[in-house]
Amino acid sequence: MLGVSGYCRVAMKTTYIRAAVRELSGYVPGEQPQSRHVIKLNTNENPYPPSPQVIAAIAEVASAELRLYPDPLAVEVRRRAAARYNVDAAQVLVGNGSDELLALIMRACVGVGTRVAYAIPTYSLYETLVALQEGESVQVPYGPDWALPAALFGADAAVIVVCHPNSPSGTAVPVTTIEALAREATGLVVVDEAYVDFADESALPLLRELDNVVVLRSFSKSFSLAGVRAGLAIGPAELIAALCRIKDSYNVSRMSLAAAAAALDDYDWMEGNVRRVRATRVRLFDGLTGLGFQVTPSQANFVFARRPGEDMGPLHEQLRTQGILVRHFPAPQLRDGLRITVGTEEETAALLEALARLMGQAQPCC
Amino acid sequence: MLGVSGYCRVAMKTTYIRAAVRELSGYVPGEQPQSRHVIKLNTNENPYPPSPQVIAAIAEVASAELRLYPDPLAVEVRRRAAARYNVDAAQVLVGNGSDELLALIMRACVGVGTRVAYAIPTYSLYETLVALQEGESVQVPYGPDWALPAALFGADAAVIVVCHPNSPSGTAVPVTTIEALAREATGLVVVDEAYVDFADESALPLLRELDNVVVLRSFSKSFSLAGVRAGLAIGPAELIAALCRIKDSYNVSRMSLAAAAAALDDYDWMEGNVRRVRATRVRLFDGLTGLGFQVTPSQANFVFARRPGEDMGPLHEQLRTQGILVRHFPAPQLRDGLRITVGTEEETAALLEALARLMGQAQPCC
Repeated sequence: MLGVSGYCRVAMKTTYIRAAVRELSGYVPGEQPQSRHVIKLNTNENPYPPSPQVIAAIAEVASAELRLYPDPLAVEVRRRAAARYNVDAAQVLVGNGSDELLALIMRACVGVGTRVAYAIPTYSLYETLVALQEGESVQVPYGPDWALPAALFGADAAVIVVCHPNSPSGTAVPVTTIEALAREATGLVVVDEAYVDFADESALPLLRELDNVVVLRSFSKSFSLAGVRAGLAIGPAELIAALCRIKDSYNVSRMSLAAAAAALDDYDWMEGNVRRVRATRVRLFDGLTGLGFQVTPSQANFVFARRPGEDMGPLHEQLRTQGILVRHFPAPQLRDGLRITVGTEEETAALLEALARLMGQAQPCC
Repeated sequence: MLGVSGYCRVAMKTTYIRAAVRELSGYVPGEQPQSRHVIKLNTNENPYPPSPQVIAAIAEVASAELRLYPDPLAVEVRRRAAARYNVDAAQVLVGNGSDELLALIMRACVGVGTRVAYAIPTYSLYETLVALQEGESVQVPYGPDWALPAALFGADAAVIVVCHPNSPSGTAVPVTTIEALAREATGLVVVDEAYVDFADESALPLLRELDNVVVLRSFSKSFSLAGVRAGLAIGPAELIAALCRIKDSYNVSRMSLAAAAAALDDYDWMEGNVRRVRATRVRLFDGLTGLGFQVTPSQANFVFARRPGEDMGPLHEQLRTQGILVRHFPAPQLRDGLRITVGTEEETAALLEALARLMGQAQPCC
């Protein structure tokens, strides 16, 4: 084959891609339908809108100034986060979602063969990120009570990740347990608190005494800003400085910085939405229990509802045909459950009605 | 020291941070002043505002829908980019700025000891990203004519990066030269076209025949959207699929996706701004030459102006005190130059006047 400039070339395959990447299956995000006519309870978004102040702040920066780079140091957001969470601004990094912050931590701490420990089942992105670094995932199964497994304490690992509250279980462990874990740990403990605003307590106070704990926060869930992509890492200043060195210089856009700052300024709005979600969570728990599901008490904005021994895949699909999206994980240890986001009162009622109808059909004996 | 739960612990250092990261100096971005009273010619932003359609598109998505995740596949932007650039949508990936796309490519292709070749001086982020992967940078110096160095052809490297046009020189090489490079290469050739809209030709047509070329585009420069963080990788579908597997699921926000789509819809606006910048570039070139600088003819939205043998650091500082920011690189081979963004006609006139004044003072003999 002769090219534009007359050269002949050999066919090339994509051998330049690293084996670790070729073999990677990648994290599979939940479905993001374009239709607005679905009840979307599959990716733990907040059913209530973000603060009007956030929307106004984004509209305000949508101006000629977009021609200029954003603040690479995110000073305004870090100042507000420091005041809100009672830490120093040097302990805060703003990320393009907490997923970016997780990836930055793995890149900062995990090389070939580095061990990273966490309890499973949990957010499957941890495994993906460790594999990408050619590190070794040390996966310790949760017991039926979802307590932090004993094998995690004193684990031979450079990094331990605790999803707090955990997904898909929705469970949280006492912060004193996370403290004990961190005090025994020989490396860094990452506390992924994407859902913590829906829970009873945060691990943030541990930062006052421990220099091997980093806490991740997200604006996606409690602040109703999944579409904005913003998160915070709060931890030891030395770690934050290292993450800052390896992040893309301009990792958060002008719009997202403005949104995060305005969201922190209107904390009451978030807390009001959290109260509503927590109230509906009780109703969802009761409704699912009444339908015969085993439901773990949740500290997050979703519940994990199981029918032990049954594959919930077909029920998940039936709900889908009725315009209701929930999350089903095909892994053997999870396939008997559905992870269901706490929606509005109306959405929750519609879900429970649909389940009652579908499960009545599936079990004509009742 | 006793903690909340009574544990005693040993002081911990940040030994959990990888050596490669501890040793990294990190890319130093240009100064982003908060004051609006400066003439900002230091980070190659476009002096003209983005399309009003882009601003309207961002304002439109600033709504209750921000509670929902963005499209992880960025279908709408990829569809428009595919139509505009005459490729398949499967050949396009949307990134949180082209910096993210560069980082993704390095993560996909560079492991410990992997060789990455590029001509220097160039965008220093390449070196940072390779170091972060513990790869080996093979740096081949440009000659005085800024032609692609012969040693780059057939270089023993898994990845070759060509900055096209190059920074800080502003020079571009003929696309037939890049084609020859890619045909001889045993690995991937990354053509970083952040500035290409200001140049005479793009390497994109090479994609029709070569499966080892990936072209990076940015919305920051020609589209006047540095604050938005959006870029495109256009290349072989297999590479794009691999990058998609390792990117953060929701790497681009709803606002940035809307902005990128609207920017591609209003291509004429960008082209109008580019024409104006190119016209002013001639005036800047002539003015600087008239002041005794050696200026390389530029294909970008900046020029590199040298006074061989002189350190331009003091002049850079003097301009700064007068409210004019340009870029000075302290590296020995670059310190005799200033990289100056093409601003508006007025900004360019003000810069040239300030330089004439300052250089008159510095050289009272004239």
